[in-house]
Amino acid sequence: MNSTIFVINPNSLRAVTDDIDAALTPLRRRDGPDLVCLTLAEGPPGIQTQRDVEAAIPPLMRTVAERASAASGFVVACFSDPGLAALREITPKPVVGIGEAGMLTALTLGQCVGVIAILGVSIPRHLRYYGAMGISSRIAGELPIGLGVAELADRQRTLSRMIEVGRELRDARGADVLVVGCAGMAVLRSELQRAVGVPVVDPCQAAVANAIGRVQLDWHAA
Amino acid sequence: MNSTIFVINPNSLRAVTDDIDAALTPLRRRDGPDLVCLTLAEGPPGIQTQRDVEAAIPPLMRTVAERASAASGFVVACFSDPGLAALREITPKPVVGIGEAGMLTALTLGQCVGVIAILGVSIPRHLRYYGAMGISSRIAGELPIGLGVAELADRQRTLSRMIEVGRELRDARGADVLVVGCAGMAVLRSELQRAVGVPVVDPCQAAVANAIGRVQLDWHAA
Amino acid sequence: MNSTIFVINPNSLRAVTDDIDAALTPLRRRDGPDLVCLTLAEGPPGIQTQRDVEAAIPPLMRTVAERASAASGFVVACFSDPGLAALREITPKPVVGIGEAGMLTALTLGQCVGVIAILGVSIPRHLRYYGAMGISSRIAGELPIGLGVAELADRQRTLSRMIEVGRELRDARGADVLVVGCAGMAVLRSELQRAVGVPVVDPCQAAVANAIGRVQLDWHAA
Amino acid sequence: MNSTIFVINPNSLRAVTDDIDAALTPLRRRDGPDLVCLTLAEGPPGIQTQRDVEAAIPPLMRTVAERASAASGFVVACFSDPGLAALREITPKPVVGIGEAGMLTALTLGQCVGVIAILGVSIPRHLRYYGAMGISSRIAGELPIGLGVAELADRQRTLSRMIEVGRELRDARGADVLVVGCAGMAVLRSELQRAVGVPVVDPCQAAVANAIGRVQLDWHAA
Amino acid sequence: MNSTIFVINPNSLRAVTDDIDAALTPLRRRDGPDLVCLTLAEGPPGIQTQRDVEAAIPPLMRTVAERASAASGFVVACFSDPGLAALREITPKPVVGIGEAGMLTALTLGQCVGVIAILGVSIPRHLRYYGAMGISSRIAGELPIGLGVAELADRQRTLSRMIEVGRELRDARGADVLVVGCAGMAVLRSELQRAVGVPVVDPCQAAVANAIGRVQLDWHAA
Amino acid sequence: MNSTIFVINPNSLRAVTDDIDAALTPLRRRDGPDLVCLTLAEGPPGIQTQRDVEAAIPPLMRTVAERASAASGFVVACFSDPGLAALREITPKPVVGIGEAGMLTALTLGQCVGVIAILGVSIPRHLRYYGAMGISSRIAGELPIGLGVAELADRQRTLSRMIEVGRELRDARGADVLVVGCAGMAVLRSELQRAVGVPVVDPCQAAVANAIGRVQLDWHAA
Repeated sequence: MNSTIFVINPNSLRAVTDDIDAALTPLRRRDGPDLVCLTLAEGPPGIQTQRDVEAAIPPLMRTVAERASAASGFVVACFSDPGLAALREITPKPVVGIGEAGMLTALTLGQCVGVIAILGVSIPRHLRYYGAMGISSRIAGELPIGLGVAELADRQRTLSRMIEVGRELRDARGADVLVVGCAGMAVLRSELQRAVGVPVVDPCQAAVANAIGRVQLDWHAA
Repeated sequence: MNSTIFVINPNSLRAVTDDIDAALTPLRRRDGPDLVCLTLAEGPPGIQTQRDVEAAIPPLMRTVAERASAASGFVVACFSDPGLAALREITPKPVVGIGEAGMLTALTLGQCVGVIAILGVSIPRHLRYYGAMGISSRIAGELPIGLGVAELADRQRTLSRMIEVGRELRDARGADVLVVGCAGMAVLRSELQRAVGVPVVDPCQAAVANAIGRVQLDWHAA
Repeated sequence: MNSTIFVINPNSLRAVTDDIDAALTPLRRRDGPDLVCLTLAEGPPGIQTQRDVEAAIPPLMRTVAERASAASGFVVACFSDPGLAALREITPKPVVGIGEAGMLTALTLGQCVGVIAILGVSIPRHLRYYGAMGISSRIAGELPIGLGVAELADRQRTLSRMIEVGRELRDARGADVLVVGCAGMAVLRSELQRAVGVPVVDPCQAAVANAIGRVQLDWHAA
Repeated sequence: MNSTIFVINPNSLRAVTDDIDAALTPLRRRDGPDLVCLTLAEGPPGIQTQRDVEAAIPPLMRTVAERASAASGFVVACFSDPGLAALREITPKPVVGIGEAGMLTALTLGQCVGVIAILGVSIPRHLRYYGAMGISSRIAGELPIGLGVAELADRQRTLSRMIEVGRELRDARGADVLVVGCAGMAVLRSELQRAVGVPVVDPCQAAVANAIGRVQLDWHAA
Repeated sequence: MNSTIFVINPNSLRAVTDDIDAALTPLRRRDGPDLVCLTLAEGPPGIQTQRDVEAAIPPLMRTVAERASAASGFVVACFSDPGLAALREITPKPVVGIGEAGMLTALTLGQCVGVIAILGVSIPRHLRYYGAMGISSRIAGELPIGLGVAELADRQRTLSRMIEVGRELRDARGADVLVVGCAGMAVLRSELQRAVGVPVVDPCQAAVANAIGRVQLDWHAA
Repeated sequence: MNSTIFVINPNSLRAVTDDIDAALTPLRRRDGPDLVCLTLAEGPPGIQTQRDVEAAIPPLMRTVAERASAASGFVVACFSDPGLAALREITPKPVVGIGEAGMLTALTLGQCVGVIAILGVSIPRHLRYYGAMGISSRIAGELPIGLGVAELADRQRTLSRMIEVGRELRDARGADVLVVGCAGMAVLRSELQRAVGVPVVDPCQAAVANAIGRVQLDWHAA
């Protein structure tokens, strides 16, 4: 089977793409679709504000349009799912957003979803998105770890903050499942889960798993 | 008072801008803010698909950034409110979207809001937006008139279809207030209201009225 | 233009009416509608309980009925919007409630609305109202400052408590916009906004701005 | 046991009170509370508009205040539950509204509640109330029979219209339980249920049954 | 009147059944239905997990089937309402669940319902149930007292923990009415209400009162 | 890789199991998990009523308990997800229900989900489930094809009815994605999609795809 799913990191940080790529190892099968991770060179260096989201969309649309015939499907690897609805107009092939896939996967792992954001500025946007998905009543809360890009490179510190925030979501908000609200953090998933004691969703892994299923089933838009 | 509110038509059709401009006459006051309507020359020729929405956002962001210091406030005159959250990051001055303002105004005029869309392709996007606003339970339904750009130029035909669709929203869905889900149709508002017998909201007029209030009160983002 | 909007304070405290009147200065235009504030002499001396609300309604209905032909529109200046639906049956002219207008305005300034109440006894009533409006999912929380009428006269103390409660709504409940859930406090608005760092809505100003727009557009009930 | 529950018909039509009284026969027990039906002589002659609702509240409040010490509890026998929250401030004894009790009882008899209203003018008010109760997602729809007071006296015609509307709620809206949205119609309940084939709630009977339970358990407000 | 309502404790603890039985005294009337409490000998010894719920259902179905002809109605006396929908298919006679009846009764006694659970493991199941009922927006929160079966036998300790949890629900979550989320605790109800200062619902008493009303009205499924 | 996912048909009809098995072909990979379909011999012959659901749960729990150590994961192949929460207590390994997975997958393929049920009796149960999932606002409607087990064997007739019902959901209810609300119908999926012109979800395929992802990622409950 020669099919290919392109997993597009819509920011320009190659290190994030590498982290995403590494996280997909368990999903790769000899006779499954190729999982090819791309960095959006023209994208912003990190996506926190709504302006960052908007800046990512035009190059993302170009990338999907250019590769639509070669692809079996796409994954947009940013938790805000930039341009998702527009990309689905560009191609009838599966286009999976990690925000949507991550949140819906969480709904199957617990009743009250807590989301760990990187910065507080993204939270109102995420909340609007949960409203658009119609799942607001399942959200226990979303809290930021409050670390900048440079600080995120320190994995141990990032993990410590995620554990703190995860425990607060669990204890003060009643979360019984957590979603890490950004891409490239899969390596922390199992340790975070162990420390907080509730299931943790890495949205990239969830989304790519969904995309593989969609591609294998050949479910296109009507 | 020399303040100016820029009302930006994010599509490139100057005729639509002219219709919007004419509709603002009752809101102009000698000592109120100037209401200046702009056509987004780089915008798409009509906004129906999500791709149209995305195409409007970059030039819209540039326009707002360029005029931010000269402006007292902005109105985005497309019912899908392209880029609204991003524009609000560009300037702390009031930025009002006609979709948001039109729908919230409707909530004060009836209990069950019916929306008249131009084409069916826009409806899922609008429904996502109502979900993001958290007002889905107030929506009686949204139905399209199904006319293309050329046909919309025929005002009488457009009005007839709006009356048909408005009556269906009233009778089969229980709507007791209607919103015209696009810009540039204010001239039809009162005749539509008379024919259907429920209040009708023109979202541009609603939005500009809100913007004037915000500007006069000098309510900026915190 | 000789049109008049009557802004009715449904409690009998003239000092509150004076505070409301002062807050409308930025909304007055030479060729805009006259903004005339009235005290409901027969109203209760403050509206906290549901009985207070009910006590205000009959004189309010009489006042609106008596002035309906002279008026271009009305604003009910109590956050519980006493009698709003009944008043809208008395006249097809715009009748704006500060509770409804204040809350809907807040929806455009943030994603999670925090409300500062005067006394806790009003909160269940307000929550029922947000439910009736269909906007409960947008409410971060509502908390009281717990000051009686006499204490409210101490502006500095009132402001201090509002800042405390506003910060709690922001930090513990995630509010990113605040509404002051009573009339006559506009003078504290900008200082409160500065201290808490999120937009603050004065519902009277929001409502009168809406009413002016409605009157200028001549949007009556169908 | 000498306790008394007063069932107050808030309109001035004695015939309605008599119909309510007759409907309570199955709920009367020798050693249960007395069920005493009252006509609100000062009430409006029928409650359809919001003004009718408001007109009923002051005399209702007086009646409850006067009888509070003699009563074990009260039932407000109008589907719009006029003044319910205020009456509950007057006395800590059980005050049951037939709208609230009827709707909540329906939630236990089916998944999708259809409501049969008398006139369309009441429907927006009822919908606001369902929103305030937080049960809007359980409502299949509400439709009016469209008969005036004189026509309602024709029981056969009223029943025919209720059956028509009930079937429409069942077939076009998916209702699997019906509520008769007014007082005094209990005599039609079982025939309507038989004809439509889904459970039918008479809200007066539901409310009085609830009130008896509350009184026997001696559950007062805290 | 020889009618009988069977109140079935679906766990095998006879002491719980005895507590339920004692709590029904105020609801017994000489000419009312007999209230007969049964212990489900084949049921699990306490219902905390979903497996406990499932274990109770087959014997519960058998019990209701066996007694359906002799009964006038049934009450399922476990807050998770095991098998409620299936039991309602077995007999058209009233089958009342204490979870459903307790929660709906609470909606009439306050605006924000707090629930006191025994163990945390039950809470996600309860939250799913509130969602199925469509009342999630009325729930302030649910917190566990965290006592095992042995510890529950210590009434004073149980009451102390309930008061602590009830105060937390009131102060940190805004609850203005409480439901005790299990059967057999009615004896603590009034003391808990006094200590917390908001109305407290014992769900068994609420459910049996409802069942009596349904039986006396002879309201069967259609 | 020797892992195995057991896909359990909880009714006793081997033909349904065979249809499910055939539908999984596109999801099988040489180095992916084995997909083994089982018929629940002790299950009911078809699951329509709530009693059918309850009858399936005990043997389903036994089957999962017996195979838990040999399995990598389970799929419950009945749209009502019998016993799902209890099964998840039996094993920390992934247990996927086709109802939950099918509905959540649909949320990614359209905004307004229409569900095609077999018989009307199942619909209230499904609606309760959507409420428990917190996704009611995304449901356009659910309608039955009304065919019994014998009639379902006639594939052409079944397809015809599904197309009729699918078009009604699309045209009268606004559905832009459809879910076939039962197992064993995957063979009709693409023809139904073509005929109605909106994406169609086969819930078994969606669920097994999810389970494969979960198993490959080794995401267990915490």
